[in-house]
Amino acid sequence: MQEVEALMRAQADDAHPDLRAALAHLLSSGGKRIRPTLGLLVGKMLGAPHRKLVTLAAAVELLHTATLVHDDLIDGALLRRGNPTLNARWTPAATVLTGDFIFARAAKLAAETDHLPLMNIFAETLAIIVNGELTQMFASKGFADRDNYYQRIYAKTASLLEMCARAAAMVSPADASTIESMRQYGYHLGMAFQIVDDVLDFTGEQAEVGKPVGSDLFQGLITLPTLYYIEKHPTDPDINCILDGTFNTEQGCIERLVRKVRSSDAVATSLEEAKEFVEKAIGYLSDMPDGVERQALEDLARYTINRRI
Amino acid sequence: MQEVEALMRAQADDAHPDLRAALAHLLSSGGKRIRPTLGLLVGKMLGAPHRKLVTLAAAVELLHTATLVHDDLIDGALLRRGNPTLNARWTPAATVLTGDFIFARAAKLAAETDHLPLMNIFAETLAIIVNGELTQMFASKGFADRDNYYQRIYAKTASLLEMCARAAAMVSPADASTIESMRQYGYHLGMAFQIVDDVLDFTGEQAEVGKPVGSDLFQGLITLPTLYYIEKHPTDPDINCILDGTFNTEQGCIERLVRKVRSSDAVATSLEEAKEFVEKAIGYLSDMPDGVERQALEDLARYTINRRI
Repeated sequence: MQEVEALMRAQADDAHPDLRAALAHLLSSGGKRIRPTLGLLVGKMLGAPHRKLVTLAAAVELLHTATLVHDDLIDGALLRRGNPTLNARWTPAATVLTGDFIFARAAKLAAETDHLPLMNIFAETLAIIVNGELTQMFASKGFADRDNYYQRIYAKTASLLEMCARAAAMVSPADASTIESMRQYGYHLGMAFQIVDDVLDFTGEQAEVGKPVGSDLFQGLITLPTLYYIEKHPTDPDINCILDGTFNTEQGCIERLVRKVRSSDAVATSLEEAKEFVEKAIGYLSDMPDGVERQALEDLARYTINRRI
Repeated sequence: MQEVEALMRAQADDAHPDLRAALAHLLSSGGKRIRPTLGLLVGKMLGAPHRKLVTLAAAVELLHTATLVHDDLIDGALLRRGNPTLNARWTPAATVLTGDFIFARAAKLAAETDHLPLMNIFAETLAIIVNGELTQMFASKGFADRDNYYQRIYAKTASLLEMCARAAAMVSPADASTIESMRQYGYHLGMAFQIVDDVLDFTGEQAEVGKPVGSDLFQGLITLPTLYYIEKHPTDPDINCILDGTFNTEQGCIERLVRKVRSSDAVATSLEEAKEFVEKAIGYLSDMPDGVERQALEDLARYTINRRI
């Protein structure tokens, strides 16, 4: 992991000093490094060449970082994980270009893995993530449909974790069925991860999560707990303000809805679903070589649902 | 070229309809298609596989398109080539993401050429372009230095044309010295191309160029004609307003400077320099296989300096 961090930081070595400082700031702003951890564990477990794995892990985390930079710009977010965003410190123009630069370096690292099919799914995954964000942006916000939700969280989170586990298997001496198992592991881990994120938006403490409780709903974003609440309480008048888009004008409606979702069993139902994804993810590990990495991948999956942030 | 156009358009086929419409709008907004033309001609001349060449040409033009989308956003430009920019029609958020999506598809196409070194220089070129834009943004605007100017136009324009010619040679059955000659051809063509662009900013008619005469200087951007003017007239008091950054406040200073540059021999000197780049570019064609493509590459180089827009 230290090698991954060093490789990421080195990507701006020959760039403008301000850009170098920006990348250092972004990389030191925390982040759980789930994606590189996942890639390193899968690759180590399957015997991937060390250098290739480090390069892949850095490429994936930089791709993720670049999407966050543009996301914060798009949302006008001034804080991420309690730290000022690039967006808060710089002009939008510099922020757009810094994101682009990090994309370019991520692509360069991906190319350095010397593995064309990997390069291909790397580019494909970026397209999925961006198309997902655009679709969400264009969609009428109050769209209450679980299928739509699963598509959204796949594009937003699971696609990159899926790619990460799959790519690490691809650069290993692994057969097609092992690669497919690791893709499935990454997919299920990613789905669980995002569902828990969406639950924590309701149940987490502001100080831990770093944003106000119910912030998704306040932005008109319907996630799994709200979907389950709506399914169980279709006649609650407060759900109309979120479905018909009047949530900004109708006084107190979202506040009430957040309280009701929090205290309903929708939270437990959502967590139950995340647990099912985690169990499925762990199931895909059953044919993998026994050892510390496999154990760590099991732990990683369980951590997904036990974390507080 | 029709196949290239079709392949570019097809890149949003499985994306959100609004995104598909945006890409169609961008691709139909004109553009001289210099980059794909260059790639196709070099590749055909050297016997590159047809399909690979079409894919490469589409990848390069999409990369170029993506950088334009973000540039227009950064500059707040509402028109490009007389057509409304995406930026003028959409929100900044949608514009950032559309640029990202086009980057992703460009990278995907580049990966489909099945050529890792190419993928590598593709990503490297994107980093050069973006780092160049950031450097220009951070630099104090009134920086009058020809070396700095050449670095800027390399990053802005010549790097991509260089990559285009080089990559087309790389996917051909060509030896290292042929690839290097084509890289040089693309580099010199690109330098000439941007110098002429910068001259046209002074000499072109607004209706043809699509922006007001002297628009670079009005933005505080010093290009080659101004640099030659400053070298010849170091004591002209009007050059201070551009060097010390007071060009926005000092009434009439830029208007006078534009008039003086236009009527000085700085324009002819700059064009002479562009011609030298063109002659050097043509020189690198001398060992290439004789035929219609080589002749077309000579014509392309000469067109660079004879064009009106």
